[in-house]
Amino acid sequence: MNRIELTEVITANRISRGLTWQQLADAIDRPVVWTTAALLGQHPIPRPEAEILVEKLGLDTDVIPLLGAVPVRGTDRDVAMSDPTIYRLYEALAVYGPAIKELIHENFGDGIMSAINFSVDIDRKTHPTGDRVVITLDGKFLPYDWVSGD
Amino acid sequence: MNRIELTEVITANRISRGLTWQQLADAIDRPVVWTTAALLGQHPIPRPEAEILVEKLGLDTDVIPLLGAVPVRGTDRDVAMSDPTIYRLYEALAVYGPAIKELIHENFGDGIMSAINFSVDIDRKTHPTGDRVVITLDGKFLPYDWVSGD
Amino acid sequence: MNRIELTEVITANRISRGLTWQQLADAIDRPVVWTTAALLGQHPIPRPEAEILVEKLGLDTDVIPLLGAVPVRGTDRDVAMSDPTIYRLYEALAVYGPAIKELIHENFGDGIMSAINFSVDIDRKTHPTGDRVVITLDGKFLPYDWVSGD
Amino acid sequence: MNRIELTEVITANRISRGLTWQQLADAIDRPVVWTTAALLGQHPIPRPEAEILVEKLGLDTDVIPLLGAVPVRGTDRDVAMSDPTIYRLYEALAVYGPAIKELIHENFGDGIMSAINFSVDIDRKTHPTGDRVVITLDGKFLPYDWVSGD
Amino acid sequence: MNRIELTEVITANRISRGLTWQQLADAIDRPVVWTTAALLGQHPIPRPEAEILVEKLGLDTDVIPLLGAVPVRGTDRDVAMSDPTIYRLYEALAVYGPAIKELIHENFGDGIMSAINFSVDIDRKTHPTGDRVVITLDGKFLPYDWVSGD
Amino acid sequence: MNRIELTEVITANRISRGLTWQQLADAIDRPVVWTTAALLGQHPIPRPEAEILVEKLGLDTDVIPLLGAVPVRGTDRDVAMSDPTIYRLYEALAVYGPAIKELIHENFGDGIMSAINFSVDIDRKTHPTGDRVVITLDGKFLPYDWVSGD
Amino acid sequence: MNRIELTEVITANRISRGLTWQQLADAIDRPVVWTTAALLGQHPIPRPEAEILVEKLGLDTDVIPLLGAVPVRGTDRDVAMSDPTIYRLYEALAVYGPAIKELIHENFGDGIMSAINFSVDIDRKTHPTGDRVVITLDGKFLPYDWVSGD
Amino acid sequence: MNRIELTEVITANRISRGLTWQQLADAIDRPVVWTTAALLGQHPIPRPEAEILVEKLGLDTDVIPLLGAVPVRGTDRDVAMSDPTIYRLYEALAVYGPAIKELIHENFGDGIMSAINFSVDIDRKTHPTGDRVVITLDGKFLPYDWVSGD
Amino acid sequence: MNRIELTEVITANRISRGLTWQQLADAIDRPVVWTTAALLGQHPIPRPEAEILVEKLGLDTDVIPLLGAVPVRGTDRDVAMSDPTIYRLYEALAVYGPAIKELIHENFGDGIMSAINFSVDIDRKTHPTGDRVVITLDGKFLPYDWVSGD
Amino acid sequence: MNRIELTEVITANRISRGLTWQQLADAIDRPVVWTTAALLGQHPIPRPEAEILVEKLGLDTDVIPLLGAVPVRGTDRDVAMSDPTIYRLYEALAVYGPAIKELIHENFGDGIMSAINFSVDIDRKTHPTGDRVVITLDGKFLPYDWVSGD
Repeated sequence: MNRIELTEVITANRISRGLTWQQLADAIDRPVVWTTAALLGQHPIPRPEAEILVEKLGLDTDVIPLLGAVPVRGTDRDVAMSDPTIYRLYEALAVYGPAIKELIHENFGDGIMSAINFSVDIDRKTHPTGDRVVITLDGKFLPYDWVSGD
Repeated sequence: MNRIELTEVITANRISRGLTWQQLADAIDRPVVWTTAALLGQHPIPRPEAEILVEKLGLDTDVIPLLGAVPVRGTDRDVAMSDPTIYRLYEALAVYGPAIKELIHENFGDGIMSAINFSVDIDRKTHPTGDRVVITLDGKFLPYDWVSGD
Repeated sequence: MNRIELTEVITANRISRGLTWQQLADAIDRPVVWTTAALLGQHPIPRPEAEILVEKLGLDTDVIPLLGAVPVRGTDRDVAMSDPTIYRLYEALAVYGPAIKELIHENFGDGIMSAINFSVDIDRKTHPTGDRVVITLDGKFLPYDWVSGD
Repeated sequence: MNRIELTEVITANRISRGLTWQQLADAIDRPVVWTTAALLGQHPIPRPEAEILVEKLGLDTDVIPLLGAVPVRGTDRDVAMSDPTIYRLYEALAVYGPAIKELIHENFGDGIMSAINFSVDIDRKTHPTGDRVVITLDGKFLPYDWVSGD
Repeated sequence: MNRIELTEVITANRISRGLTWQQLADAIDRPVVWTTAALLGQHPIPRPEAEILVEKLGLDTDVIPLLGAVPVRGTDRDVAMSDPTIYRLYEALAVYGPAIKELIHENFGDGIMSAINFSVDIDRKTHPTGDRVVITLDGKFLPYDWVSGD
Repeated sequence: MNRIELTEVITANRISRGLTWQQLADAIDRPVVWTTAALLGQHPIPRPEAEILVEKLGLDTDVIPLLGAVPVRGTDRDVAMSDPTIYRLYEALAVYGPAIKELIHENFGDGIMSAINFSVDIDRKTHPTGDRVVITLDGKFLPYDWVSGD
Repeated sequence: MNRIELTEVITANRISRGLTWQQLADAIDRPVVWTTAALLGQHPIPRPEAEILVEKLGLDTDVIPLLGAVPVRGTDRDVAMSDPTIYRLYEALAVYGPAIKELIHENFGDGIMSAINFSVDIDRKTHPTGDRVVITLDGKFLPYDWVSGD
Repeated sequence: MNRIELTEVITANRISRGLTWQQLADAIDRPVVWTTAALLGQHPIPRPEAEILVEKLGLDTDVIPLLGAVPVRGTDRDVAMSDPTIYRLYEALAVYGPAIKELIHENFGDGIMSAINFSVDIDRKTHPTGDRVVITLDGKFLPYDWVSGD
Repeated sequence: MNRIELTEVITANRISRGLTWQQLADAIDRPVVWTTAALLGQHPIPRPEAEILVEKLGLDTDVIPLLGAVPVRGTDRDVAMSDPTIYRLYEALAVYGPAIKELIHENFGDGIMSAINFSVDIDRKTHPTGDRVVITLDGKFLPYDWVSGD
Repeated sequence: MNRIELTEVITANRISRGLTWQQLADAIDRPVVWTTAALLGQHPIPRPEAEILVEKLGLDTDVIPLLGAVPVRGTDRDVAMSDPTIYRLYEALAVYGPAIKELIHENFGDGIMSAINFSVDIDRKTHPTGDRVVITLDGKFLPYDWVSGD
């Protein structure tokens, strides 16, 4: 079994056992976005947390080393983008991505927002015209810096 | 002149005149992300604001109707993604997009975060390990709803 | 079994049992386009309806939670477009899509026709030169609106 | 000047002259979707209508033969799909296209909805939860029929 | 078994049983191009013909409903085009396609040659410099016609 | 001026001068499909014919050597395929291409229909249900033959 | 088993049995490039040669008809090009392809080098600066010739 | 002027002046394939040869430094492959590329045929069934060799 | 003038003036890889350095603000990869990229080598079998770290 | 089992047995980057080393000939690039690739850095602002040289 096949089993077992992502995150005391992404194959899961999750999800314990290995990250873009819920995020980048770039440079200088020293949070905010999804992307600013190890 | 050519002129004039996006946003009293995106060709700009911006940027007044027309939105994805600053945003979606989808469904039900009834904000947060870029995507939740006009 | 494999089984069983989509829709008292799309993996199916459909289609009852989960929506575009019946719909968008955009903006302002608060209907109309397929796309107009949750 | 360049001029002149598509359609007494599509380069425009439109739009009369020639139809899909207003139409096909195919076959037999013997209409319907865009695609059913001219 | 898997079985059995496409077409008294395309998964095959073919090809009778269902038509273009015999047909379109379009319009007006009310024939013609393959594409002319069902 | 730019001028001049492709073919006594394809940049045009065509189309005589040079043949597939009239030809190959391959092999053996020793003809055939476009592709059969020059 | 699966078995058995392509070619007294290509699924193999090869490679005799059928030729270009040894051939075409075209036309006139009436040979030549791979592509010149079968 | 624009001018001037590639190669005493490729923008041309060619082709002498600079090599693959004369070379690689790889490894070991220490030659060979184009690719064998500079 | 057009002018002027990249780097006392990349449009150039370079390259001083603006970084991959010198770098990643990933994780843990806090150096090393190009990529290790700004 | 399936088994066994790449490299006394790449399917592994690795990884000894065969090298670029750790390498090429090309030509002349006579090394360097990954690409310079074997 490779990590992609393992993710399919995790997905199926979570649904058939009626577990929420939040319950799984609570069980290991980690942020829910991190936990969900990790179970979907995007982060290695340390042994203690993996042991708990394997038990909750009814997985074989010999997948624990595989859960702990650094995965090949990423999502097939064509598949992901065909889903309307995910597509709206790509659409936001198509419309606002260049503006975000300009304002990062204007406010921080030449560099990037790290996607490695980084976290994502999702919140629900009430609003008179209907509840809102609020997604916060929070990454360290990294300035372009020509450093060599010598 | 079409809108894409106009955006090139705006970009060039802003640089040569040494104007910040924030100064342009302040001049029309609009949020800076909206103003930047609009000047980059992603939103129509109403006449009063257009008149101010045209003057600031040294544009010909006969571009005002073009600035006011609804543009064909979007960015050439291959070009946008080749830039490291913009790429990090796409990378975050590749790693966390499916997790975000799962959690929108878990917390709100079947539906999407609107990218139309929507806003984006960029903030700078200080942090002991280095300042952080915080991008907030804020969109109304729209449930899948099979409604017909009859 | 994942949702894509389940859709293959549904497709095969429907043909071998000689059931029409209309019969399946009638059994659960839902619109036929919605029912067909849902069974083809595009919408979650609530438990009561899923129980009926599982029985009609000779499926195992343990697929009911999977039918009830929000699916990854969408269709492989290359496959779908190679079919002449589906292609004509894409061709109509290639020829008339930009005109539809212009007229939505002219009649409603800057915004979109929602594909979430949305329904599709198919009718047969008689006509002297041959019967006609009439497809109605009916979606709520959503104006571009820069709203933040704060 | 080729037809694509001519479309750019038409687009620019329409905006700068403040003409609506409906006014142009009324001037030649043709349906507004047809007129808009034709002016965007998707249909040949007969001489009498072309003469009126050329005058309204301030074009040179020697473009009349070009407006009357059958164009190379279609839209660059990547450009068109990056616009959110147009994208929602493609999204509807991604979600409902295979269902529409199934139901055309169930109700009419093996064949297609013609996109040639075809019309499109856009309406505004009021609804308690907000006005709706209603797009009607109306095409002759063409059965697969193995006919040879001999 | 889905239709694509069934086509693989048909292809394998035809070769191992040493049957020609012409023999199969003769057995059901249908044109050989139609029969070959249908067995390769491009047309539904009515029950009487399907019963004969299933017997000839040593297939299980429970595939008869699947053979009778309208298939998702089309061929993976990249695979098909890599074959030199098929590629020459695409090459002919690359060289002569725009000329064919011009001459359809010159001789028939604005419209298309239907690929639905359509037949294909292949012949062998002798010629002093070597025998020739003659492929005849024969489709009804369909004029662009803006008809609505109302 | 390169050949692509020259083709644009030819196309524009033919329309503005109201010449049909048939008239141009008659003027040089060549088949009309060949003449149309050649003027669209797909074949070199010998000097005597080029001199006639240059005069008819109001071109400068110094383009005659360029018309006589072997062109880089072919058509941008994405552009060509977006046109419904051309698309139907590609659709016919998607549906019938593999069947044509099978029957070429069954009737002629392993090899191809040449697209070089080749001609195309377009005819109009009357038919009780509507006139038909009949396109004949006629190419020499070339058997796979492992020949070396030594 | 289809031809692609058969090629995988041939590849595996050849390696595990320690057979060279040359030994296989010698066994059937055919050129080694032809034999290798045929065993990799690019040419039909006549029964007498197939019987010898099946025995050498330890294949089941019932694959002989499949080896004798005309295959769908070609190689997945992305896979093939990722291999450095194959890529150098594509690189040579990227750098020299247009020059080869020009010189075929200059020396032979308008036409092509056939890839059907064609052979390939590979030789080893010694050279003071290191041994060289010499690949000879040898194909019949086919002039563009507008011939019809009538 | 960049190198691509310069190549267009060279191409046009060569045709209008009626020069053959062979004449240009003779004028600088270089192989004709090298000369053609170099003039098509694939190799730097040293000053002495550039001076002769500039004079022959009626170019401005200030392009000599540009002709002498190392170019960005390569050809747009989609454009090149649409031409039937060039396509046959790609087809040969699709059919014989993997076989060539196998035989390079069998005869030389693990490594590649260099496309840098490399030459191409084109010959005409007479043959009873028609003259043949013989293209010789001749490159140094480079074994995979894990060498480091330390 | 935008940055891409400016890069074309820089490239042309450098060649016609016979300046080396090293001379330009020395003039501004910066590393040569950084200087070359910056002049090719990949880094903003501060005013003091820009003033020197503008003078050396014979550019207009009003391009100094454009040289100082943060550019849209990146290279058109298809163009870049068609060049054999650049392609070898991509080939090295195709062959060794996954191994490099594994060893970064084995030696540093889960994370990346930064391409922002990063430098590149090129050296020439002599070697008995021929001089060697030695390219050193030197980037700070960034561990995956789930940090939020709150 | 083909080489790709074998690589999956190697990957899984290495993780479940808790072996590091360095341990495997030490066992066969080869450089660790070479060993990792070879085990990931990029290099043939000679029998003595293969025997040791097969034992360490718990593989069947009959895979030794397959490990010793020259593989089809390369990595699916879309998959590889979606991983952030690998992507940074591609990003470095997008930003610095053209500069590297220019400087190879400036320092060595027209030619390439070989990726065949080549090695890769990864080091860890300490640095006041954080440890650094240092990747050294070391390849023989190969000058463009028009050599023929005659």
